[in-house]
Amino acid sequence: MSMTGRACALACAVGLAACAQPPAAPPDTRAADGAALRAVVKEWSALAEAKDAPKFASFYAEDAVLMMEDAPDIHGKAALAEGVGAMMEDPNFALSFAADDVVVARSGDLAYETGSYTMTMSGPDGTPATETGHYVCVWEKQADGTWKAVVDAPVSDPPAAAGE
Amino acid sequence: MSMTGRACALACAVGLAACAQPPAAPPDTRAADGAALRAVVKEWSALAEAKDAPKFASFYAEDAVLMMEDAPDIHGKAALAEGVGAMMEDPNFALSFAADDVVVARSGDLAYETGSYTMTMSGPDGTPATETGHYVCVWEKQADGTWKAVVDAPVSDPPAAAGE
Repeated sequence: MSMTGRACALACAVGLAACAQPPAAPPDTRAADGAALRAVVKEWSALAEAKDAPKFASFYAEDAVLMMEDAPDIHGKAALAEGVGAMMEDPNFALSFAADDVVVARSGDLAYETGSYTMTMSGPDGTPATETGHYVCVWEKQADGTWKAVVDAPVSDPPAAAGE
Repeated sequence: MSMTGRACALACAVGLAACAQPPAAPPDTRAADGAALRAVVKEWSALAEAKDAPKFASFYAEDAVLMMEDAPDIHGKAALAEGVGAMMEDPNFALSFAADDVVVARSGDLAYETGSYTMTMSGPDGTPATETGHYVCVWEKQADGTWKAVVDAPVSDPPAAAGE
């Protein structure tokens, strides 16, 4: 083999050795995604506390659904903005929540979050009625990299646990 | 360049051209996963209709949580088996449900499902009381390839919609 051939064979061997690795798995972004999502949830709760309905509603995906007990599901961002806006107009409205578990898919496109909330609304007699509960929220990463809620399902605790 | 060198260079070029492709993305199993999950949900509902509490409970992951309105969350497979068993002992118990949307992560490890349910239990006076509602269920694929529910959150419709 000529020197040229030898050099080529060496280059080829080195190149193909690198190539022989199995296809690299996509980078694992779960820890970063989870941290980003927890920050989103904190920001979302702060918007609820600030009663900023338009910004609050902007955290829902276009085709999101809010499932509330004893009420029809609210589908779609426009209806959600209207529904959230109406709730926040209640003078006794107050809402805060915090994430408990956050689990992100290996592919970083889907996640779910469980957490706890405390919500106050006017009761039938107009006085503030507070309930606590848990929720599950499913999130999808959008094309621009932001996380948006696609399913939001709050589930109330027993009345005795509301801790009023 | 010698013939050997030329042949080597050619082999090297062909090899590296194949190597130059971006790393192959993992196979997209979302359609198959979605179909499998829909079959699991059908089987799960049939077990509810058959009041087979142990088999029904086996569809929950070890650390699953069932969030029911006005009741403490039920955490973990053992507590779920006990809770589901107690519900199914009610002589008026009946439950059926069906998937609506099923969305699977690109990585095939996480999915969520929304659907509708109809549940009958004994009311306070002992007569059957039926409620309808929607639910969101989050699923995780286990090491053995089966899907298990990790969060199950049924949300009742307004009473007028129960259609009794």
